[in-house]
Amino acid sequence: MLGVCYYPEHWPQDMWQQDAIEMRALGLTYVRLAEFSWSKLEPQEGTYNFDWLDKAIAVLAEQDLKIILCTPTATPPKWLIDKFPDILPVDINTGTTRGFGSRRHYDFSSENYFRESMRISEVMAKRYASHPAVVGWQTDNEIACHDTTHSGSDNAKHAFQAWLEKRYGTIESLNEAWGTIFWSMEYQDFSQIELPILAVTETHPSHQLAYRRFSSEQVVRYHDAMIAVLKKHCPEHFVTHNFIPMTDTQADNFALAEKLNFACYDNYPLGRTDLFFADRDTDTFKRYMRTGHPDFASCSFDHVRGISKDNFWIMEQQPGPVNWAHHNPRPLPGMVRLWSWEAVAHGAETICYFRWRQAAFAQEQMHAGIKRVDNSKSVAWQEIEQFRDELAETEFDLTASVNSSVAMIMSTSNQWVTEIERQGDSFDHQLVEFEYYSALRQLGIDVDFVSPNADLSSYKLVVVPCMPIVDKVLISALEASPAHIVFGPRSGAKTEELTLAPELGPGNIQRLIPIKVESTETLRADCTMPILYKGASYSAGRWNEELAIGEGVKTIARFSNQQAAVVQNDKITYLATLSDVEFLRVLLNDLAVACGVKTYLLPEDIRLSQRGQFGLLFNYSAQAKRVDLGASEQLEFVLGSEEVAPYSLSIYKRV
Amino acid sequence: MLGVCYYPEHWPQDMWQQDAIEMRALGLTYVRLAEFSWSKLEPQEGTYNFDWLDKAIAVLAEQDLKIILCTPTATPPKWLIDKFPDILPVDINTGTTRGFGSRRHYDFSSENYFRESMRISEVMAKRYASHPAVVGWQTDNEIACHDTTHSGSDNAKHAFQAWLEKRYGTIESLNEAWGTIFWSMEYQDFSQIELPILAVTETHPSHQLAYRRFSSEQVVRYHDAMIAVLKKHCPEHFVTHNFIPMTDTQADNFALAEKLNFACYDNYPLGRTDLFFADRDTDTFKRYMRTGHPDFASCSFDHVRGISKDNFWIMEQQPGPVNWAHHNPRPLPGMVRLWSWEAVAHGAETICYFRWRQAAFAQEQMHAGIKRVDNSKSVAWQEIEQFRDELAETEFDLTASVNSSVAMIMSTSNQWVTEIERQGDSFDHQLVEFEYYSALRQLGIDVDFVSPNADLSSYKLVVVPCMPIVDKVLISALEASPAHIVFGPRSGAKTEELTLAPELGPGNIQRLIPIKVESTETLRADCTMPILYKGASYSAGRWNEELAIGEGVKTIARFSNQQAAVVQNDKITYLATLSDVEFLRVLLNDLAVACGVKTYLLPEDIRLSQRGQFGLLFNYSAQAKRVDLGASEQLEFVLGSEEVAPYSLSIYKRV
Amino acid sequence: MLGVCYYPEHWPQDMWQQDAIEMRALGLTYVRLAEFSWSKLEPQEGTYNFDWLDKAIAVLAEQDLKIILCTPTATPPKWLIDKFPDILPVDINTGTTRGFGSRRHYDFSSENYFRESMRISEVMAKRYASHPAVVGWQTDNEIACHDTTHSGSDNAKHAFQAWLEKRYGTIESLNEAWGTIFWSMEYQDFSQIELPILAVTETHPSHQLAYRRFSSEQVVRYHDAMIAVLKKHCPEHFVTHNFIPMTDTQADNFALAEKLNFACYDNYPLGRTDLFFADRDTDTFKRYMRTGHPDFASCSFDHVRGISKDNFWIMEQQPGPVNWAHHNPRPLPGMVRLWSWEAVAHGAETICYFRWRQAAFAQEQMHAGIKRVDNSKSVAWQEIEQFRDELAETEFDLTASVNSSVAMIMSTSNQWVTEIERQGDSFDHQLVEFEYYSALRQLGIDVDFVSPNADLSSYKLVVVPCMPIVDKVLISALEASPAHIVFGPRSGAKTEELTLAPELGPGNIQRLIPIKVESTETLRADCTMPILYKGASYSAGRWNEELAIGEGVKTIARFSNQQAAVVQNDKITYLATLSDVEFLRVLLNDLAVACGVKTYLLPEDIRLSQRGQFGLLFNYSAQAKRVDLGASEQLEFVLGSEEVAPYSLSIYKRV
Ligand SMILES: [Zn+2]
Ligand SMILES: [Zn+2]
Ligand SMILES: [Zn+2]
Repeated sequence: MLGVCYYPEHWPQDMWQQDAIEMRALGLTYVRLAEFSWSKLEPQEGTYNFDWLDKAIAVLAEQDLKIILCTPTATPPKWLIDKFPDILPVDINTGTTRGFGSRRHYDFSSENYFRESMRISEVMAKRYASHPAVVGWQTDNEIACHDTTHSGSDNAKHAFQAWLEKRYGTIESLNEAWGTIFWSMEYQDFSQIELPILAVTETHPSHQLAYRRFSSEQVVRYHDAMIAVLKKHCPEHFVTHNFIPMTDTQADNFALAEKLNFACYDNYPLGRTDLFFADRDTDTFKRYMRTGHPDFASCSFDHVRGISKDNFWIMEQQPGPVNWAHHNPRPLPGMVRLWSWEAVAHGAETICYFRWRQAAFAQEQMHAGIKRVDNSKSVAWQEIEQFRDELAETEFDLTASVNSSVAMIMSTSNQWVTEIERQGDSFDHQLVEFEYYSALRQLGIDVDFVSPNADLSSYKLVVVPCMPIVDKVLISALEASPAHIVFGPRSGAKTEELTLAPELGPGNIQRLIPIKVESTETLRADCTMPILYKGASYSAGRWNEELAIGEGVKTIARFSNQQAAVVQNDKITYLATLSDVEFLRVLLNDLAVACGVKTYLLPEDIRLSQRGQFGLLFNYSAQAKRVDLGASEQLEFVLGSEEVAPYSLSIYKRV
Repeated sequence: MLGVCYYPEHWPQDMWQQDAIEMRALGLTYVRLAEFSWSKLEPQEGTYNFDWLDKAIAVLAEQDLKIILCTPTATPPKWLIDKFPDILPVDINTGTTRGFGSRRHYDFSSENYFRESMRISEVMAKRYASHPAVVGWQTDNEIACHDTTHSGSDNAKHAFQAWLEKRYGTIESLNEAWGTIFWSMEYQDFSQIELPILAVTETHPSHQLAYRRFSSEQVVRYHDAMIAVLKKHCPEHFVTHNFIPMTDTQADNFALAEKLNFACYDNYPLGRTDLFFADRDTDTFKRYMRTGHPDFASCSFDHVRGISKDNFWIMEQQPGPVNWAHHNPRPLPGMVRLWSWEAVAHGAETICYFRWRQAAFAQEQMHAGIKRVDNSKSVAWQEIEQFRDELAETEFDLTASVNSSVAMIMSTSNQWVTEIERQGDSFDHQLVEFEYYSALRQLGIDVDFVSPNADLSSYKLVVVPCMPIVDKVLISALEASPAHIVFGPRSGAKTEELTLAPELGPGNIQRLIPIKVESTETLRADCTMPILYKGASYSAGRWNEELAIGEGVKTIARFSNQQAAVVQNDKITYLATLSDVEFLRVLLNDLAVACGVKTYLLPEDIRLSQRGQFGLLFNYSAQAKRVDLGASEQLEFVLGSEEVAPYSLSIYKRV
Repeated sequence: MLGVCYYPEHWPQDMWQQDAIEMRALGLTYVRLAEFSWSKLEPQEGTYNFDWLDKAIAVLAEQDLKIILCTPTATPPKWLIDKFPDILPVDINTGTTRGFGSRRHYDFSSENYFRESMRISEVMAKRYASHPAVVGWQTDNEIACHDTTHSGSDNAKHAFQAWLEKRYGTIESLNEAWGTIFWSMEYQDFSQIELPILAVTETHPSHQLAYRRFSSEQVVRYHDAMIAVLKKHCPEHFVTHNFIPMTDTQADNFALAEKLNFACYDNYPLGRTDLFFADRDTDTFKRYMRTGHPDFASCSFDHVRGISKDNFWIMEQQPGPVNWAHHNPRPLPGMVRLWSWEAVAHGAETICYFRWRQAAFAQEQMHAGIKRVDNSKSVAWQEIEQFRDELAETEFDLTASVNSSVAMIMSTSNQWVTEIERQGDSFDHQLVEFEYYSALRQLGIDVDFVSPNADLSSYKLVVVPCMPIVDKVLISALEASPAHIVFGPRSGAKTEELTLAPELGPGNIQRLIPIKVESTETLRADCTMPILYKGASYSAGRWNEELAIGEGVKTIARFSNQQAAVVQNDKITYLATLSDVEFLRVLLNDLAVACGVKTYLLPEDIRLSQRGQFGLLFNYSAQAKRVDLGASEQLEFVLGSEEVAPYSLSIYKRV
């Protein structure tokens, strides 16, 4: 289904009805309201003004549009900040207060803000609990965006000390767990412990990890409390949240999503591609600057499907150029439609576009909407119409699930470990995971992202690109799973407290394959070296491990000095290096085939996704490309054909 | 005429007389004194010491040198800072106080400093009002240099709040004008408004623009008050100021210069070239590292002539290597002479060199002077002699005006708009304007820089490279002018308050040409694309607009996807993209010719300027180059010939 | 002899005995203990716990290992910081306090910390003064590391004011010495003087130099006091310190080492190469990423031998990958042995490895040890065994001196001058000095680094790459020395107070060669130009001087514009430019030969060092290389042959 983000408070009331009629005409079902509207809802302390919102809902409901309301907590009003200045967060890199004047100016450890947030949420929830047009809630907005998970405030420090006391019980046990004997960091009391910021040189990694865990839990605590308020007063409504890319929250995304009915993603393919690939050379960058990288948005879709209950929503989708990346290109014609279908292919049930009409003022005035500032229709309008009609014509089942036999394990705490202990500047956790994902996607393989606690019994192949902390529970789950497991380097090398595995890397994984990491090195990304696999040479070396190999382990790829680069037994394939994507593609194809996972020989820039009975072929290039899907199944094309048009897609149905 | 900046207080008194005699011998007329000398003039509060200055003036006057005095306010002494610590400005990027120990350590919003500055200015003005040798005053020094226009102090905040109240009257009208409803930024009272700094993420653009306007007005308020003090007590003296490049003041330069008798420029071609072209590759950079870019200093000359009453002065000119750029090359032999002539060609009446003798101590000890530390003469000496003699021999008329039929409109507030809303990192306001200017100069066209309020009735061609805010008054002036108008992209796209034009870009310009900007994109500078004009291909794309075109508008250049890149009607040419300089040169040549503006086919690195009866040809290359000036006029060479010598110039006179 | 850094407090007590037995088996003589252990030695104020250390010493002593104890002052415990918060230093770039949580969190100007440091040192010294196993002391650890020499604290400010008063006597004499008249910086009282930090723009260079001198003296004051405590109570023990690279201390290293029995160096060839060559292109960088640059570690060895009494020790040597560089490669097989021999070749008497066993926890858990976390032996173990055996087999005399006839003068105060007044971004003091050193080393020349006050009577050639401040005492010493002197550009250009030499550069050197520097320029490193020497062309130009040349001076190399690039008389060769290393190699070869210094034609990547009767040839390349040593002496190879194996060495003995 389709929806839109709408800010009636930005427009004269006499435009609302026409807007509603046009939304209906475009085929929208949902309208998201009230995000960022606290100062309008409560212009002074305790003085509420819901008239405008009541009216806006009424006008929209008259056109049978369903309303999703937002708690307005991403933007506390100035009077509230002035009353409780401790709401403002403190920058952990400079120690200065991060002031009022933009958004997300709140500290998750401010008890004043916690209380005020729940109060305004409750006021809204009570008011609209039984409104017939209101169907659900979005909590806050893009929680943790703008690096707000971490605050260097006194509030944070004291909450951290209490959290540490709860986690470790005694100061002796904290000293022991972290190894504070190093550099005389032993504590006598929890009240002595500072935040691990602004020190002379790098702070203790266990201290840093604890601070990240604490900060994440503060976000979850806040978010869960808000969900509870909404669910208590609005038991009939769904509660969701619009997530930014997983690596940016710096919080445990599985925990954040746990109490939600489902998760949403805010999808900005061009802005994200611009930021993520900013250091690429002209040719590599230019190629996707107006389409987005074929795997970048998809990867986030699969991430968010992973933290959602089953399928997910797109709560915001880019309908044209945005305003916040280094450069903000226009999508190529057809891309708004293509991105919508790509989201659907990966499990989206509803696509909401951001925003109905471009705002004429403030920070996002250069952010395109479906309608322009002069109320004319932007090019996105027609693409949304086309998408709407194709959804109907293909009879696409938006309730179907994505059924994947390949899982990748993701975990924020392991991301933290690699950020705290980078060891080589060329090791980028997000890129490492992305390269594995991209290799799988180039093979036409659908991927589930799962948590380390997930049930793995239904997978044939489980891929773990980067997971330093692997506990024994996971080892048991992996043992129990029928899947073959692929581990990238660093796997299992650390304990829960970010100390080295006492038995050396890959730590607990040694229970599954008898190997030991005898040394580790990191190299500059431009100073890599060849590895050999089945007679062909690939490039590797940003991270290299020297392995000692036990019985039953064979070496299937070698460095040029003959050391093992990839080793294997029946259960496990372990990569002792970070290679190029090409090698991952070849290796994972061999492993997938061996596990009975079907792979495809897709032309460059073609991607295939399957959902329910449907298969979708996407073409991110300027040339039409013919895809050979093999003769194994009987397929019927309901949109396009095996010859996929440029910047377009084809859809087939299994008969 | 010639002059010099002299700091007698840096040298033993017994050197002064010989210095004066040598100044006279060099042909100098003016000597600037007392800059930065507050601690010498008033070593303790209220204890004045003018003896040394009186003596210095007397020694110089004896050689018939004329004195320009400076108010010493760019360097408040330590005792004053200690008495009024609120004089120190606050860094807007860090929130830390910018301390004593260099220069310009004052906050334009400190009332204590305002009062003290006017006091010392008045003391000086009264003392020297009727001194026969004193002819004029320089206010302060390089006002606003070192990013001092903006301060994050409490003084600034409170003054800003008062300024806002004065500008907007009621808080409701401010909320409305800015659109504070966005992100719940609505205010109930002016006292709630913070400076738009140090927030969690980007602050409101209207808020930022207001802060820049306020800050600029604080500078102007301060400067105007100082001018008033000087004019009150010294009605016979001129009052001027030595400006840094216009884009660096972050203030309204037209306003700053309005009350002055004329404006001065501090000309450092090599230092400025080093900074402005710092990101260029070896070949592009090396070529001009010892000459300065042929158009960079000239552009500033024309800027300053634009804010001056008619002609202008050079108050400081580089006589050798300086000390403050990333790298500080030596000028090639002949360049000190060439730069002096180049300034004259663009309207300079007087050239003062900085400084008489290189200082042996402090921050600028590596900054060359006309004389060296050991009192020997540097190579600049001979070049100044040559310039002096050539001025006489050519009988150059230093009172003549530059008469241009082409104007470029410049405006600091539009520079602010593009800095506040960059939208693409590759959009650099200064570079955009410079590229248009350079294209015109390569055609031998003299350029007037004018304010948006200027009388445009005498121009044949008006070029507006980048002016997002175009109000209706300017539209009327443009309509009334006989000139053809060239607008670059972004023109007219914004309202006075930095919101989007409600009728879309180019906003009010739509009255002159019926086009609408339907979308805007920005691209990386290395990811541009071809545009086609008259069968030839050029490169463009850092900023691209998608145009809807009304009646009577023809498309004269297209993007490779056939969209309009440049459109035109009789009155207006509108560029919907940022192109390379080559395209601008070709297009502007066609437009100039069509408007009856004479253009020249100049060899590479040759520039032509005309002033009064004289034409000056400058050669920035190592090869002699022959220039064909056409047969339209009768010319007589008074210096050199059509064959312009390397790193030299030729001068002709119209007969 | 061999030794190791050991932290028994990081390991269960029941491992200690086995460790000691294995140390003995590896052939170690020394064990360094107690570094960073303050919180273990004094867990609460005044409550001491030496039991663990007594036991550890006893266990080690039982295996005849000799103990070096460290004062634990690099890591004050948290309870001490909480009691005296003024111990924490203040960041001079931001003004924020540098907090607890890592190491070196102390301010050299905190009197509280001074007193507490001497107290804990005295407690330890008294306790172990007569322990038979304890042979010596290491003060603190890597003093001044992590930019801790400079603090922006109030303590520092007041101590600086007192230091200034002591140095200058009266405020008038300070004003005169610095030239505070410039920019009205005149002071009336020492109490007005701020630290030269956080100002609006660059602060006064003389002020900066004074602050660096003061800060250096604060470090020396602290260090000398600690040495005095140790020497008073432990007259039989040696006292030493483990230095980081000289340029990183920002302190006078000769002064720091003066009261020590000998100096030590902490040798991390790969980490240091990664940082120092970080901006190099792929080919240049990759070549040495796993060997270290052939001259970088050697240069530090020679530096530390220079500040030591005769020979020196390596207190820490990298046995595998480290954790703190941008990238942390594994040493190539053989490099741990090669580095050990390289240190010996340059005068090391003892090599201690850091550390016995890799720590499983805290900041350095990715830093390799001789033993791994699981107590297995890393590859370093065998290389140390090999080195130990080769030392014995070759009967290498570790007490022999390095006898060099070539000296380079080094001086921290001259490093400061070039850092304070960079003048061109491409001027890097450390690189300038390194390039001269590398050129000499490529010629097989051993180099002594000496202080400006050294006795120069035994040298044939003295090289001064960069020494702006050259006083008359040094001029006399140079005159008295039989050596030919080579000066790089900038030499002698400044006075003691960082003002320009009044007679122009090279200042006092003009007594030795009649030349004057008439102007100076700096160029981008990629914009250099040719110089001609003996018909061949080389590249130069990052720093260029224009020379006026007096009688008896000949020009031996010229710029392409015919100006003098290198000039010479019998006593002096003066380079007026910074050239490439190739030119330095050719020129220095010619000069060395002329002075009777033997040079060698070594293949690329081969280095030769001589110590006592031994000559050592090192091969940093992957190919075996044959070296022709000439027929002048009778040599006998005691290890390897003239054909030096890849990544290996050969040793010969003069018979
Ligand atoms: Zn959003
Ligand atoms: Zn100046
Ligand atoms: Zn160390």
